[in-house]
Amino acid sequence: MQLSELSERSGVSVASVKYYLREGLLPAGTPVSARKADYTEEHLRRLRLVRAMLTVGGMSVAQARDVLAVAEDPAFGRHTRLGVAQYMLPPHVTPPAEDAPERDAWTALRTEVLTLLQQELGWRIHDAAPALDTLTQAVGTLRALGYRAGADLIRRYAEALHPIADAEYQVIEEFPVLEAAIEATIAYTMLYEPVLLSLRRLAHEDVSARLHAEP
Amino acid sequence: MQLSELSERSGVSVASVKYYLREGLLPAGTPVSARKADYTEEHLRRLRLVRAMLTVGGMSVAQARDVLAVAEDPAFGRHTRLGVAQYMLPPHVTPPAEDAPERDAWTALRTEVLTLLQQELGWRIHDAAPALDTLTQAVGTLRALGYRAGADLIRRYAEALHPIADAEYQVIEEFPVLEAAIEATIAYTMLYEPVLLSLRRLAHEDVSARLHAEP
Repeated sequence: MQLSELSERSGVSVASVKYYLREGLLPAGTPVSARKADYTEEHLRRLRLVRAMLTVGGMSVAQARDVLAVAEDPAFGRHTRLGVAQYMLPPHVTPPAEDAPERDAWTALRTEVLTLLQQELGWRIHDAAPALDTLTQAVGTLRALGYRAGADLIRRYAEALHPIADAEYQVIEEFPVLEAAIEATIAYTMLYEPVLLSLRRLAHEDVSARLHAEP
Repeated sequence: MQLSELSERSGVSVASVKYYLREGLLPAGTPVSARKADYTEEHLRRLRLVRAMLTVGGMSVAQARDVLAVAEDPAFGRHTRLGVAQYMLPPHVTPPAEDAPERDAWTALRTEVLTLLQQELGWRIHDAAPALDTLTQAVGTLRALGYRAGADLIRRYAEALHPIADAEYQVIEEFPVLEAAIEATIAYTMLYEPVLLSLRRLAHEDVSARLHAEP
């Protein structure tokens, strides 16, 4: 197909397609004349993935290139290829610098959280997971402000969320083609976050209404 | 207590306490001399609430005033007094303007989501809930990009999240004093959001590792 059809079928503007070509995120098409090239279904699939990384996932071009490099490296299995995409997604919390006064407390709290998940709950997670930093920061803020965020509460949340995450992951498994699976990982991770958070608030409202029924 | 002690016990800087006094968010203390005033435990409680609204909750001074106005109005019950605080919390999605071309689709989708929650699941929620706009936007984005976000999936998320929200709400119920309960509503709503989202990502990693075990 021509570039215009690629743009139309993907919903990505011609200007954006050309930008992705320039940045090397989309491989060049097969030249058919001095000014025209032919694109395939594979280009269409890659284009959807690039859009997911840059717009839905909020990645930089460099981060998107890293995801593609791992995706194209046969040395890695499906777990790593999908995992790298998730690791590149925002937010990325910056831990305190090594010589900062709060560094020791940070390290202790991160270890506490990691031990809880890995050893007590048996979760197979890498200790470099960026979500561990997000979790450490959130728990630290709660405790610093005097709110309850003990191991019992974190364990309860982890156990309640695991079945949800399990069901979600089955959707990702339905994509046999790797690029489509990476795209789905990014889209479902990011786009379902506001679904989760808004339903949680609405559920709070329902619980409160039942407890304190007002006419 | 003096202003300096109020600052110390609350962890709020003297400058911030003075700002809250000027903005009328914190009632004036009882004057004890031309330049000094006496503050009570009630001031301390209010100060914690104001900090929760402005810093943790990200509210504007005007929004914080609205929350306090409802909190102090005996015409409202506990459900409304806590609910207003939740409604003021970000994010606030702006629906398309009434004459915008996408307005009809927005309204139809919002009605679909609201009907699912209110009628099928029996949730007692107000149709003005801001979280409904967030949910509508998220579902609309998923569908516009061609991802699955049907009624079955939304129902599954809603049913999975309700027990979590129920357990969370019991923590709020433990605060008999209204101002402390409002403060807790804001803090737990906002500060547990990154806990939820990061644990979800870590659970995905665990599920993937089990399915595609790599050495």
